[in-house]
Amino acid sequence: MKIASYYLDGHERTGIVRGDSVVDVSDLMPGAPSSTRQLLCLMDETPGLSGTLVRRAEECAGVVLSDVRLLPVITRPHAVWCAALTYLSHVREGGDRPAPDYPLFFLRVADSQMGHGAPMIAPVVSQQLDYEGELAVVIGRRGRHIREADALAHVAGYSCYNDGSVRDWQRHTSQITVGKNFAATGGFGPWLVTSDEIGDPYDRGLQTRLNGEVVQSAKISELLFSIEYMIAYLSTACTLEVGDVIVTGTCGGVGVRRNPPLFLQPGDVVEVEIDGIGTLLNPVEAEAAA
Amino acid sequence: MKIASYYLDGHERTGIVRGDSVVDVSDLMPGAPSSTRQLLCLMDETPGLSGTLVRRAEECAGVVLSDVRLLPVITRPHAVWCAALTYLSHVREGGDRPAPDYPLFFLRVADSQMGHGAPMIAPVVSQQLDYEGELAVVIGRRGRHIREADALAHVAGYSCYNDGSVRDWQRHTSQITVGKNFAATGGFGPWLVTSDEIGDPYDRGLQTRLNGEVVQSAKISELLFSIEYMIAYLSTACTLEVGDVIVTGTCGGVGVRRNPPLFLQPGDVVEVEIDGIGTLLNPVEAEAAA
Repeated sequence: MKIASYYLDGHERTGIVRGDSVVDVSDLMPGAPSSTRQLLCLMDETPGLSGTLVRRAEECAGVVLSDVRLLPVITRPHAVWCAALTYLSHVREGGDRPAPDYPLFFLRVADSQMGHGAPMIAPVVSQQLDYEGELAVVIGRRGRHIREADALAHVAGYSCYNDGSVRDWQRHTSQITVGKNFAATGGFGPWLVTSDEIGDPYDRGLQTRLNGEVVQSAKISELLFSIEYMIAYLSTACTLEVGDVIVTGTCGGVGVRRNPPLFLQPGDVVEVEIDGIGTLLNPVEAEAAA
Repeated sequence: MKIASYYLDGHERTGIVRGDSVVDVSDLMPGAPSSTRQLLCLMDETPGLSGTLVRRAEECAGVVLSDVRLLPVITRPHAVWCAALTYLSHVREGGDRPAPDYPLFFLRVADSQMGHGAPMIAPVVSQQLDYEGELAVVIGRRGRHIREADALAHVAGYSCYNDGSVRDWQRHTSQITVGKNFAATGGFGPWLVTSDEIGDPYDRGLQTRLNGEVVQSAKISELLFSIEYMIAYLSTACTLEVGDVIVTGTCGGVGVRRNPPLFLQPGDVVEVEIDGIGTLLNPVEAEAAA
């Protein structure tokens, strides 16, 4: 099942994607949730609900996807955990540095994100906006001290993420958080594909394209730290809530490590595609002058 | 005016603190907000509201503070930005390192926080829980690209913060975020004191006490980066929302830099006191076995 967050007729909605259209969950059940996070909570509490929704969605016309504005898959997550240096190809392009002993994690705020099709904003204060294609894991069952063996049972599904990075601000200090939190730099979509539909996530290929040209390519199996390990590690520190997002890090090929560097310009189009999930596309636009 | 978030009779509430009691805002106005963040939004939209609330609160009995459970001042903030290395006394106790060119920022998730009186949890996986007494700034007016000259007009008020840190986990990688996000390690309270009541924040003294003994002491004027600068810097990257928190960093005297190191143990009591705001107290408790 594919679940999308979208905006239509003045309201945030959550819906089931079927081909080129999306069916509002509130047309499928009474008292339906109005956000994907709430829907995931309900699905966790109600075994069999997803099957029921899919069957009912088949009988509805829905709205053509191009007529709605897609939002970040989770619009108001409690936490968006982002990992860094999790592919050897990306570690190595940064020079002679060893692979880290643990994943590096930082957090993103909700407003740093945008949905599929929405502009990725190149800020006025920097010429160094960069792309990072990544697999996003969405938590579907809350938990603390989750064991690796149980971790995938806590995953609702997967999506594509473009962890857009303002490189000079990322390097103002040792902590990269601010450079990773510029408004509308984190693409998250186009939708969530539930775990049952993905099967083995490691078997999937990830590709980032800039204006149609492939700039990053990896298999998820190249991750230095497994998804199970990341879930266990983070949940040692804090409770993972339904709708929390773990963005698993990027592979080699980022713009800042190229010679000459390749930074995003207004008019560019960035796509992140993951097999079995879909393609997240965001056009780059210049920030409006203040 | 002092504003507290608290829990009573099964509900989160926001109230005006008057001496030893708190008056529920919903007893003072129709359609009152149920969270301090919502109250701050309303105060920003409604000039004169705070004066009205204070006058009405004087005529109400309220509830004795010891009969309610205080919550973190902002219970579900959009962002909790925390600064590091912002006092020279703390930079220097870390060895021969220069003062940073910019404040180091990381983010905390809401559930890493607890209110005044609530236990600070020493995690099972670490023996290195440490205190950090800090001034917290709460945003009262949203904004992007806020100029330093306008910054204090965006501040709703101030509170005390204990930025509890799990030192070994903080040092797993170059990014300190995970070690700063253990559940119930960030004390935030006891309440917010509005800007008009604080006047010049730099004129205030900050003190951290462990079991009654002073372990940290500074004046806010010792900050290497002004509050105005931090607001301008962060709002260059993203919109600061009402209820966002900027935790301004700690001064010298932290436990990890002592010889021998002084880490928190179950049974300890940590207090952070700031002149004109009050005292945030949290007892340390061991995490329950999983």
